[in-house]
Amino acid sequence: MQDDRRHIASAFDRDLEAIQALIMKMGGLVEASITEAAKALATRDEELAEEVRLNDKAIDELEERVNEEAARVIALRAPTAVDLRVILSVMKMSSALERIGDLSKNMAKRTGVLVQMPQINGSTTALKRMAREVEAMLKDALDAYIQRDAELAQDVIDRDGDVDQMYNALFREFLTFMMEDPRNITACMHLHFIAKNIERMGDHVTAIAEQVIFLRSGEVPGDRVKHDLITPDAGPEGSGGD
Amino acid sequence: MQDDRRHIASAFDRDLEAIQALIMKMGGLVEASITEAAKALATRDEELAEEVRLNDKAIDELEERVNEEAARVIALRAPTAVDLRVILSVMKMSSALERIGDLSKNMAKRTGVLVQMPQINGSTTALKRMAREVEAMLKDALDAYIQRDAELAQDVIDRDGDVDQMYNALFREFLTFMMEDPRNITACMHLHFIAKNIERMGDHVTAIAEQVIFLRSGEVPGDRVKHDLITPDAGPEGSGGD
Repeated sequence: MQDDRRHIASAFDRDLEAIQALIMKMGGLVEASITEAAKALATRDEELAEEVRLNDKAIDELEERVNEEAARVIALRAPTAVDLRVILSVMKMSSALERIGDLSKNMAKRTGVLVQMPQINGSTTALKRMAREVEAMLKDALDAYIQRDAELAQDVIDRDGDVDQMYNALFREFLTFMMEDPRNITACMHLHFIAKNIERMGDHVTAIAEQVIFLRSGEVPGDRVKHDLITPDAGPEGSGGD
Repeated sequence: MQDDRRHIASAFDRDLEAIQALIMKMGGLVEASITEAAKALATRDEELAEEVRLNDKAIDELEERVNEEAARVIALRAPTAVDLRVILSVMKMSSALERIGDLSKNMAKRTGVLVQMPQINGSTTALKRMAREVEAMLKDALDAYIQRDAELAQDVIDRDGDVDQMYNALFREFLTFMMEDPRNITACMHLHFIAKNIERMGDHVTAIAEQVIFLRSGEVPGDRVKHDLITPDAGPEGSGGD
């Protein structure tokens, strides 16, 4: 009986490790997607942008696999409450990764539009910097998960505030460009969308980091104070756009 | 043995019905949230907008309950592949509903900002019409789920094209307003965000309808042709913003 239980437990652990490997693979693809989408935008490289769009399929397929594996494990192992919590958090993480991938794909989609428009001083560089920060946060969030490092996870959550600040600064910048010259309006609308999408990536990375803290403490951290409060002069959107 | 199996099956069905009841409750709250957020925007009613924001908590809590119940059922009943598919689709539906609720909350958040700005001719009426269409689609998607009506689900998916068209028309309208008068820019940026959020609500409703078809056929319908292709003169974003 003891043996049986040990056997069942270790079987669950093996299954969980297999799923976590899929999550890490997903994370790697999403990190690459963010970097390349930002690079394609900054260098106006439509081919690279197209690649990012095509690679998103692989991310979506991995999410499906994670969900199927997770369900299979739950059905097969009937895990304890604690193990169940781990499986559910893994499913939430894969969903967050898939959404970050979609946002990155959308950034790539806009590259094709923006190459046909006037360049807006330094905006793509600022967006690339913002994307690099989000990608670094994602890397740390995944490390925090593997190491169950709540401190690192909290650090990731805190850094999302910087991303929100970057977004708000860009939002104001775009408004200025548009008011200065109406010919900038369409390009700025697209660039603003990209900025907003990167800001939302940060929110999803935060959701991953929150799962790490949840796994350690059993409690999801309370609502963060967002730094992009809705005021006419600050960023346009509160948290939880999706 | 026969009896056992029958007994297990019916116990699963009872559990599933309880979860579906939660989904329907969620759906009702989300429908109300969309209507009231659009009404608050059109009538510049900040109190109603605040209500929408507060009511979103109840939607989030229901999603948590659905996920917990679903996990409990999977662990307890070790459902067959087919039953497992139903449970997973229920979890996807609650996630889609939660995201629609968030988007509706964001629409409400902007009302407080927009009341401080010049009104843009007829735009809030157009947004309200768009929101009404999405709400009707959501109602039909939930009916289609309960009745396992793949035809109605397909109809919902097709109607999302109209919502995309409405969005594209508004996008062009906002560009025009901004170019006509720079003083309209900030207000139009916010109104455009609302239009985009309603368009995204339509995508999430479509995802719910796709689950119905998936349950009937075992296959998720292929990628829809989106009507908001990214071109400078059309809407700014392809599908899958999140």
